[in-house]
Order: sequence, then structure tokens, then C-alpha cells
Amino acid sequence: MDNGNAPRLALTPGEPAGIGPDLIVQLAASGKLPAQLVIIADPSLLRARAGELGLNVSIQPYEPGVPANEGMVTVQPVTLPTTVVTGTPSTATAAYVLQTLDIACRGCLDGSFAGMVTGPLHKGIINAAGTTFSGHTEYLAELCGVDRTVMLLTDGDLRVALATTHLPLRHVADALDSTSLERVIRILDQDLRRRFGLEHPRIQVLGLNPHAGEGGHLGREEVEIITPLIESLRAEGMSLTGPIPADTAFTPAARHSYDAVLAMYHDQGLPVLKANGFGHTVNITLGLPIIRTSVDHGTALDIAGSGRADPGSLLCAISTAMDMAARQLGDNFA
Amino acid sequence: MDNGNAPRLALTPGEPAGIGPDLIVQLAASGKLPAQLVIIADPSLLRARAGELGLNVSIQPYEPGVPANEGMVTVQPVTLPTTVVTGTPSTATAAYVLQTLDIACRGCLDGSFAGMVTGPLHKGIINAAGTTFSGHTEYLAELCGVDRTVMLLTDGDLRVALATTHLPLRHVADALDSTSLERVIRILDQDLRRRFGLEHPRIQVLGLNPHAGEGGHLGREEVEIITPLIESLRAEGMSLTGPIPADTAFTPAARHSYDAVLAMYHDQGLPVLKANGFGHTVNITLGLPIIRTSVDHGTALDIAGSGRADPGSLLCAISTAMDMAARQLGDNFA
Repeated sequence: MDNGNAPRLALTPGEPAGIGPDLIVQLAASGKLPAQLVIIADPSLLRARAGELGLNVSIQPYEPGVPANEGMVTVQPVTLPTTVVTGTPSTATAAYVLQTLDIACRGCLDGSFAGMVTGPLHKGIINAAGTTFSGHTEYLAELCGVDRTVMLLTDGDLRVALATTHLPLRHVADALDSTSLERVIRILDQDLRRRFGLEHPRIQVLGLNPHAGEGGHLGREEVEIITPLIESLRAEGMSLTGPIPADTAFTPAARHSYDAVLAMYHDQGLPVLKANGFGHTVNITLGLPIIRTSVDHGTALDIAGSGRADPGSLLCAISTAMDMAARQLGDNFA
Repeated sequence: MDNGNAPRLALTPGEPAGIGPDLIVQLAASGKLPAQLVIIADPSLLRARAGELGLNVSIQPYEPGVPANEGMVTVQPVTLPTTVVTGTPSTATAAYVLQTLDIACRGCLDGSFAGMVTGPLHKGIINAAGTTFSGHTEYLAELCGVDRTVMLLTDGDLRVALATTHLPLRHVADALDSTSLERVIRILDQDLRRRFGLEHPRIQVLGLNPHAGEGGHLGREEVEIITPLIESLRAEGMSLTGPIPADTAFTPAARHSYDAVLAMYHDQGLPVLKANGFGHTVNITLGLPIIRTSVDHGTALDIAGSGRADPGSLLCAISTAMDMAARQLGDNFA
């Protein structure tokens, strides 16, 4: 099959000592790596990891406009400054990791790539190398000149967006104000339309407090912030319900009534999503001018090079990005 | 079948205008009400509700020591001071509701009953009638002379206990201190042994913060409170793991590794439990000298008298209490 007309997607394997390279070569060897992917990496790293795993992979350099060959790994080469020791990350490769992100992101912005998929990187190593780095998402937002993104996680047909993300629990309530929550809901609504093709996305907004505050008896944020905002955005035509108690929002009966849930914080929404067991979680960044999906797991340094890394989440992240890119292509030609 | 030797359990239907009485007569009419239950209620209320639902039920008064008759509703009579209007709660019946709880609880304490199952009551009405009442659990704890209980919810084989319960989210972090958490863990460990027959219960303790604080980067409570406490209790022989991130604790693979999860707060643990869809949630109060289980739903005033009330949660609460009572009986004879 010639995928030459399919939009090319960039894939950054992330931390070179982690399982990112394993997953690429494992997928390639089993024939599951879509030809339209362009891996942003040092080809020698992929060859070395394939050798370590006893796998055969064929690598071809990426040439824009040239149709991809099925069965080959297309690589846009980035040179590693040092040899990678599998399982042992090094500050010497931190700049390389960031360079792969830069290339993928700039390629998306200039239209060379239709989107990007990111593997797991090691925040600590990048910071230890002297670059202040709070995460993939923040880094890409800055490259794209965007100051607010929304984290959306999906597993099967369940979509959960977060109003706040990686905050200590004691700071969550104060981080929730009407202005920031309004931006989150607008981004979510817009990107459910733009990226997921939902014409009139139904968003279920959770309360912040248990029982969604029980009419103000268990917290005032629903009464003072969430409900007034929902009413004002609903008056604009958005399809919002809530605030709903988190423990009734995810029952099997409730799930049919919405396209996405907006949780107020990390541990209110993600445990359910990951407990689902439908398959694998994909992390999608909304609010960027580009398509970006990510695996939901870490570098798993302890099993890098062992062949035991599970490519499930990466496969889901790839197929989600491919769906989004195909939809964007359709929109552009519509 | 003669259930005369099975331990008798008290059942309080809760708010008389709500679905509590519906559930009793529905179960009785369908032959699903175990004969060993003693309903603490006004028999005229049950007769009236059965009539409203077009159901036939036979009522016999409870006589201690007399074997229960299958197919009959055994009632320990408590007289209502007024006629109940289905769907419309009245402050005039608040004292009656509390009286049913008193009778059930005292009967458990003096050994007449092996445990109690509670239907849904209406907190607001009891408070409006002039009795400060913060909930079933607190009321029963006071009757039993206990100052600390633990809320455990079960659905299928998933058990989730809560370190804090009905608090506004912004107060959760400050409510978590080593002393109170230690009491919660001790009660949970003891009652998983005593009430569930687990000889060496494996408890998975969640972190308070996302990613269980990520080594202190996302909150300090894990480092300062939870981890030291887990280590000290583990040194005593308790089987504790954690603190575990809430979003990895409930994955299908993780579930095999524990008998119960201790969540730090309401919306960290309960959404997963109720999303399960295995069946129905049962609310169990640990730390009392008596067995007490409860439905997980409210009075559902809008559907009282309609025949549409779902007895699933009550049935699970009954069977859970019966299991616990049978185990206690076994222990007493062992």
C-alpha cells in the first residue's frame, strides 16, 4: 500500500535510554509501525536497540514528498552526542531530546508534519542538564506561542479533560477561578469540534467538592464559580451539564449522556479513566495550533532493552493522532 | 426453610415518605426479603405503601426467639405520630425516624440483633425538626460511644475506605494528620479481619497528591505523613503498600494485589467504585462495636410510591450484613 498521500506524522521517542526506542523497533519488527510516521531520532540508536532486542529493522531517511515504504522505519536523523547506555539516562543527551521535540514541533507548525506523537522523556535529566523544563506540554506550548493548553486523556470512548493538572491537592481549590475555568471550557469545546469532529460536543462538568458541594454545604466553589460559568456559557449555546458529583458522573448509565467529562483536578478524573481497562490511555494536548498526542507512561528505565515494554499506549497515541490528522486534512479540503 | 437459627438483623427503612418503605414491600412481594430481617417501622406505613404499589404483603410482629416465617414481613412496630404523605417528608416524623435507629442500634448492642441495615433518611428534615443531625454514621457512633469510624464502600470485590469523608476539597489536606490517619488504618485493618474474615488484609494506601506527590515535587504530605506512618505500621506486621498514585491503583492489573484501597478523600476513591458497574455499592461503617451496612442512595422522594425504586443496593447491603453476621456467629462459636 502506498501511503504517500497520507499526512506524515512526527514521532519523538523521548528519553533515549528509556523504552521509547524499544517501542519503535518492536512495532517496526512486528509490522505495526505505520509507514506515514517519521521518527525523529538518531538512526544508530534505533539500530543499536533493535540489535539488543534481537530484532531486524530497515531504516530509510525521511525525504519530504517521497512516499513512505511499508515495512521500513522512516527516520529524520538527529545526531546523538554520545553513546546511549540502555536504562541509564545521561544529562549529555538532554539537548538531543529537546532537539527532537523542536524538529517535530516546528515541522508541525510549518506544515511538514500533520501532527506529532511523543514518547516518554525524563524531566529530571533535562533539568539536571541545566534546562528548566516542567514538561512536554509546557515546552510545546511555548514553542507554539500558546499560554494555555488543556490536558485531555482518553481511553476507549471515555474522554476526561482536566481543569487543573499537576498541583499539590492543597492548592487545587485556590487555582480554580472563573477566568481560568472559562478558558479551559472554551478550549475543550473548540477542540472537541476541531479535533474530534463533534459538531455539538456535550461536556459534563464535575463539581470541585464531594457531592458537587451539596448546595453549598460541602464547599462554595460550585455555587460561586462553576454554576454561574456553566449558565453563562450555556447561554452562548454550549452543551454543558453540571456541576455533577464525581461519583455519579462515571456510572455506566451516565456515560451515554456526554462526549467528555471535565474533571476539576487530576485524581478526580484519571483514576476512573485508567481503571477502565478498555485498552490504553492516550494523552492529548488541546489548545495548541498543532496536533499532539502522547503515551501515558514513563520511561520505564528498568525494562528498557528487555523486550517487555508494552507498545499499547503508543499504538493508541499514534492511531489517535492519525485520526485527528485525517480529519484535519478533510476539513482543509472541505 | 426455617431460618429460626439464623441471626436476626434489624432493618430501618429510613425516611417514611421516601423509597425506603417501597423497597421493603417490593422485596417482600417478590419473595426476596430474607426472613431473618426485622423491619423497625410502623406496620401501617408498610401496608399503606404496599397498597399504593398494588402489592400484597403479610406482616407479622417480631417476637424474639420465635423462628421467622418465610414469605412474611417481620416488623418490630414503632408508631408513627401522623399519616405519611408519600413523597413529602414532614418534620413531624423526624423523631420516629430517630426512634427506629435507636431501637435497631440498641438491639445490636444488647445482642438482640446481629447487625443493622439502614435505608435512606433525610438529614434536612431531621435538622429542620430541631435535632442536630449530621448523618446516620455520626448518630450511630454516638449511640455506640465511639468517636471514630471509617467509611468503607464496596462494589463487587472492590473495597474502598476513606481517610476523610464529607469535607470541602480545600480542607482535605489540613484534615490529614498522622494521628487521625493512623486511627483510620488501624480500624480498617482490624475490621477487615473481624468483619471480612481476612486473616492478613492487604491494604493499598493512596497518596494525597497527584502521582503520590512525585517524591515531594507535587506536595509534601506523602513524605512527611503517609510514608513514615506506613513504615511504622508495617514494622508492626500490617500489610500496607503505598503511598500509591490514585490513577495507577485501580488498573485491572493492580487490583489483584490488595484487599482494600484506602483513599485519602471522597472523590479520589468513590468515582472508580461507582464507575465499576459490577452491581451496587454498599456503605459499611467500620469501627463500631456493631455491624452496620447501608444503601448508597438517597430517599428519591420523586419516585417514592411509583414502583420504580431499584432494590439492588438494599439487597447488597442486606446480604453484606448477613455475611458479616454469619462470620461473627462463626467466630463466637469457634
